[in-house]
Amino acid sequence: MAVLEFHFDFGSPNAYMAHKVLPNIEQRNDVTFDYIPVLLGGVFKATNNVSPATNTRVVANKPEYQQLEMQRFLRKHQIEFNFNPDFPINTLQIMRGAVAAKFDGAETFKTYVDAVFDAMWCTPKKMDDPAVIEWTLETMDLDVERLSATPEVKQQLIRNTEDSVARGTFGSPSFFVGEELFFGKDRLVDVEEQIIYQKLVVAS
Amino acid sequence: MAVLEFHFDFGSPNAYMAHKVLPNIEQRNDVTFDYIPVLLGGVFKATNNVSPATNTRVVANKPEYQQLEMQRFLRKHQIEFNFNPDFPINTLQIMRGAVAAKFDGAETFKTYVDAVFDAMWCTPKKMDDPAVIEWTLETMDLDVERLSATPEVKQQLIRNTEDSVARGTFGSPSFFVGEELFFGKDRLVDVEEQIIYQKLVVAS
Repeated sequence: MAVLEFHFDFGSPNAYMAHKVLPNIEQRNDVTFDYIPVLLGGVFKATNNVSPATNTRVVANKPEYQQLEMQRFLRKHQIEFNFNPDFPINTLQIMRGAVAAKFDGAETFKTYVDAVFDAMWCTPKKMDDPAVIEWTLETMDLDVERLSATPEVKQQLIRNTEDSVARGTFGSPSFFVGEELFFGKDRLVDVEEQIIYQKLVVAS
Repeated sequence: MAVLEFHFDFGSPNAYMAHKVLPNIEQRNDVTFDYIPVLLGGVFKATNNVSPATNTRVVANKPEYQQLEMQRFLRKHQIEFNFNPDFPINTLQIMRGAVAAKFDGAETFKTYVDAVFDAMWCTPKKMDDPAVIEWTLETMDLDVERLSATPEVKQQLIRNTEDSVARGTFGSPSFFVGEELFFGKDRLVDVEEQIIYQKLVVAS
């Protein structure tokens, strides 16, 4: 099977929602997404982009419509979601933590990603406060010491972000199926179609 | 069946693409969309919005990605499309013509809409040139005199546009299924789901 990647930043509510839908796609198609931590602030800076919230604030009717679309998505996929009252949250520390958790191994990484996404968009908590982060990780039996930001971790997050932009991304969430880029949680239907197509190609 | 509306301006390539897909949805579900001519420039002015092209020009990678998404949509639905070299085209005259054609009756309106959408995004022609418009209509055996912009026609286009914005739209194409607003050609899957749902509600 070709490359299957999910480029995410915990700070993006749409990335959280995609994260909640991906297990269904993985199960239905017997595939696994490689989660790539990227720093959305870095992506925005490199591409001269801004968050959807910033972009649509000035347009009448559009924020209300986007709220409506979000509610439809949450209802359809039965996702529990609570907008983080401390939004926007500086995700530098928790994204570095994601890189460190990935270095530590698949099991640590999965536990970490689930816990931090939920702490951002389900509980939700002030996840740029070091004490809150530490408490969240300890609750999940994660070793805070092992997840600290070494120079190697910091460098890897920068590299992930630069590589992502170099491959065509400009926001979160982004997905790759082989060479094909898909942007946004609303493209998950197309992501799944492409996976099915790729499998057919490989099988033939 | 509840209200089923397609709010369109010929100037929007995405409206053209939606127009090419709607007949399939109509046939599959035995429904008919009411085409509502609105002036996109008026919608943008009322909502402080700008065209997607203007909005994303400054963001690196995004124009290339949107081009990719468009090509995927065209391929999936097998739509013939040629970007109009005279874009952006002032659509005031052809949108007034649409209102006049609708006043004239369903058959005239259908012929007019098909002809003008194709002249905008398939042939394509400079459809803000009165001589080009006249020639296009005559080719389709449409009576140019009967489609001229009376004060009543002008007023109706303004009213359509204002009503559309008052009901929550901010761009093109927009769809209503009952009270539910959907924006963008990429929401046509959801539009169809909502039609099926509404039919179930009516039947039960």
